[in-house]
Amino acid sequence: MDPTMAHETMAHATGALTQAPGRAPLRVALLGCGVVGSAVATRLVEHAYDLAARVGAPLELVGIAVRRPQRPRPDVPVDPALFTADAEELVTRADIVIEVIGGIDPARGLILRAMEHGASVVSANKALLAEDGPTLYAAADAADVDLYYEAAVAGAIPILRPIRESLAGDDVRKVLGIVNGTTNFVLDKMDTSGAGFAETVEQAQALGYAEADPTADVEGFDAAAKAAILASLAFHTRVSSADVHREGITEVTAGDIQAAKEMDCVVKLLAICERVTSADGSDAVSVRVHPAMIPRSHPLASVRDAFNAVFVEATAAGPLMFYGRGAGGDPTASAVLGDVVAVARHKVAGGRGPGESAYADLPAVDMGQALTRYHISLDVADRPGVLAQVATAFAEQGVSIETVRQQVAPGAGERAKLIVVTHRASDAALSATVDALAGLDSVDDVASVMRVEGD
Amino acid sequence: MDPTMAHETMAHATGALTQAPGRAPLRVALLGCGVVGSAVATRLVEHAYDLAARVGAPLELVGIAVRRPQRPRPDVPVDPALFTADAEELVTRADIVIEVIGGIDPARGLILRAMEHGASVVSANKALLAEDGPTLYAAADAADVDLYYEAAVAGAIPILRPIRESLAGDDVRKVLGIVNGTTNFVLDKMDTSGAGFAETVEQAQALGYAEADPTADVEGFDAAAKAAILASLAFHTRVSSADVHREGITEVTAGDIQAAKEMDCVVKLLAICERVTSADGSDAVSVRVHPAMIPRSHPLASVRDAFNAVFVEATAAGPLMFYGRGAGGDPTASAVLGDVVAVARHKVAGGRGPGESAYADLPAVDMGQALTRYHISLDVADRPGVLAQVATAFAEQGVSIETVRQQVAPGAGERAKLIVVTHRASDAALSATVDALAGLDSVDDVASVMRVEGD
Repeated sequence: MDPTMAHETMAHATGALTQAPGRAPLRVALLGCGVVGSAVATRLVEHAYDLAARVGAPLELVGIAVRRPQRPRPDVPVDPALFTADAEELVTRADIVIEVIGGIDPARGLILRAMEHGASVVSANKALLAEDGPTLYAAADAADVDLYYEAAVAGAIPILRPIRESLAGDDVRKVLGIVNGTTNFVLDKMDTSGAGFAETVEQAQALGYAEADPTADVEGFDAAAKAAILASLAFHTRVSSADVHREGITEVTAGDIQAAKEMDCVVKLLAICERVTSADGSDAVSVRVHPAMIPRSHPLASVRDAFNAVFVEATAAGPLMFYGRGAGGDPTASAVLGDVVAVARHKVAGGRGPGESAYADLPAVDMGQALTRYHISLDVADRPGVLAQVATAFAEQGVSIETVRQQVAPGAGERAKLIVVTHRASDAALSATVDALAGLDSVDDVASVMRVEGD
Repeated sequence: MDPTMAHETMAHATGALTQAPGRAPLRVALLGCGVVGSAVATRLVEHAYDLAARVGAPLELVGIAVRRPQRPRPDVPVDPALFTADAEELVTRADIVIEVIGGIDPARGLILRAMEHGASVVSANKALLAEDGPTLYAAADAADVDLYYEAAVAGAIPILRPIRESLAGDDVRKVLGIVNGTTNFVLDKMDTSGAGFAETVEQAQALGYAEADPTADVEGFDAAAKAAILASLAFHTRVSSADVHREGITEVTAGDIQAAKEMDCVVKLLAICERVTSADGSDAVSVRVHPAMIPRSHPLASVRDAFNAVFVEATAAGPLMFYGRGAGGDPTASAVLGDVVAVARHKVAGGRGPGESAYADLPAVDMGQALTRYHISLDVADRPGVLAQVATAFAEQGVSIETVRQQVAPGAGERAKLIVVTHRASDAALSATVDALAGLDSVDDVASVMRVEGD
């Protein structure tokens, strides 16, 4: 189809991706050649003509650092001589370094070394950016190079650039993200099948949507790293993984999902970044990951399977949503290569693009201070005075009730179900209320407690 | 709430938006002060501290060009002395010119003059960019300044920057956009109420969702301009309004909406930009605006009221969707100010940001060559041989049928309804088929013809 294909294929054999304007090639080094790395290498080679035209200079792949350079990789259409085990050396001879190894070390050291040698860096490494971003940002500033990482959050979905650039004249109030495909797949399947958590995770593992050890996903570590990155950019404030309150989905039961259905809601694991007013009246941020009920009418509710979506509320723009594939080789490569083109353009034009900024420097409130809403389902005795006792427990913590609904199941005898949805209150007060409810003699069981978002 | 507010308000009185890093202010001129212009001016003033911190220099509003500078504008918190009728003079003393007048002239002349005097330009003017973009792009190149126009398409939704930058390492295959709020409001209301077009437009006018003269919206002119801009960026090719096939929604009947419902579809006015293979086998683009049925399960189907959304299909990224408010003062101001921050950053750093590119230079195919699918509803005689006659009419045009369904209404006597959905075929062949069907003696009426998208 492409008349230049034959010529390009010849060029590939040497690793020189020519086909482009007169400028000298920019040297690109790739660290890692797993699912994402091989998709990146393949696109670099097969789309060399378009990339060069868009950058204004050819991109020349000068090496791919892998642990076992001798291993045959027939799917990656490059000269096998480009593979090297010496990443330390490779990063010193590149204009642009793409890091898709993941993890903290050796990725961090290699990125820092690449920058010291003048390379701009494109990384997909959420864990590293969320744990130690400031070290990397400072190194990028010191070396006057770019550090871009669109692929670190929500895969193919353009979300970091829109927040950093498109919304730079606006004020982000809140970000609600479905940023982990595994947990969305599990919760979606629990919603449609009525099955429990353990059973659904096994199904997800069988289908390749969950790892053999699903801890990083189901315990919310992955989403928490992404929340930290989103909050940092949205609020011009440094937020690390350690600042993020994190609850996973392992405690979500079929009963919780059913309770959500009865409220015309779905349960999603949300990465929530919110601009708030702290107890002393000053501006602050709340960054948290936890399962929450959201109404089925909310745009995030229709995000099915392993898709990701990020809902952003900004003062002037109002509600925005960004939707797409959150993982996978090709989708992640799309985000990586968008960043590669951006940093390459800056290399051609001279100068750097807009990076992160931390001027607002807002404190992060702890979870107890965050204002949330709770949905609480109680099994209670069906006798006069119970509702008053329950209502008093809320009032004593200063928690205002939005709705309360009593269900008496046929044949339930003297038992009933009370479903309470609260107004926004501090998470600490809500948590204390739940403890108090559990201690009431009229309450048999606190059957389900779930936060509510997206009103 | 903001401790700097008092100080800022003082600064406003002089028009000097200080509160910022040491660099000399960038001079900003605003052309137009209607709904969007006044929202832009207000945010420039009230968010001066944040804007300066994000840009790295203060933004100083040096003038607002309006037709009647003496008219009191109590809602715009600036020194009344900043209003001027002399736009020609104003654009010569600015580093950044924001054009929110709209229309072709005098906007074009003012933008060209601003660029000649070294200003970067931010515009929300879809009509001008779609009609005569290349003149403006060339002028921006010649003057070495930026020309950004995120607000021209889909209001607050970041869509042009993601296509231009985030997807620069990918290949956009197709864009399907709901980019006109008025028509989406009308079609959505027709869907929920069952009412006809004329009645629903009156309702939209009463609610302020449609203009007194709704022609630009309901005839698809507005969407066609946006389609031209989207296609230009998505395909690195110059597409003007004149290249866009345009059909509005004035012919959409309550019967069409009902037919869509029976297919579990909704009718939307879509701006469609598609990379296609032309008759001679070469790459080309098809750019068109028309109503189409899309399945209710498609992400665009749930875009309600006057909201906008743009669905993008890219080779590596897969499906993406961008959703938000497509119009209104504040949402449009959000997009304008995102661009203002971007061009201001470039002024501070030196150089320009990435602009449009036209290297691919693909031809636009005419509508007859576009591959589409049709849904056709026919009132026919209920007798043997009719289906064969109808099927022959399709076959003679080389159109392949995907499904055909016969409905016999109770009491319909010897009449029946045939509902045919085709596979993709050239629009010319489909159109000729409809003509042939209308001429068959067994066909009483071609009750509804609608294209189908979003499979």
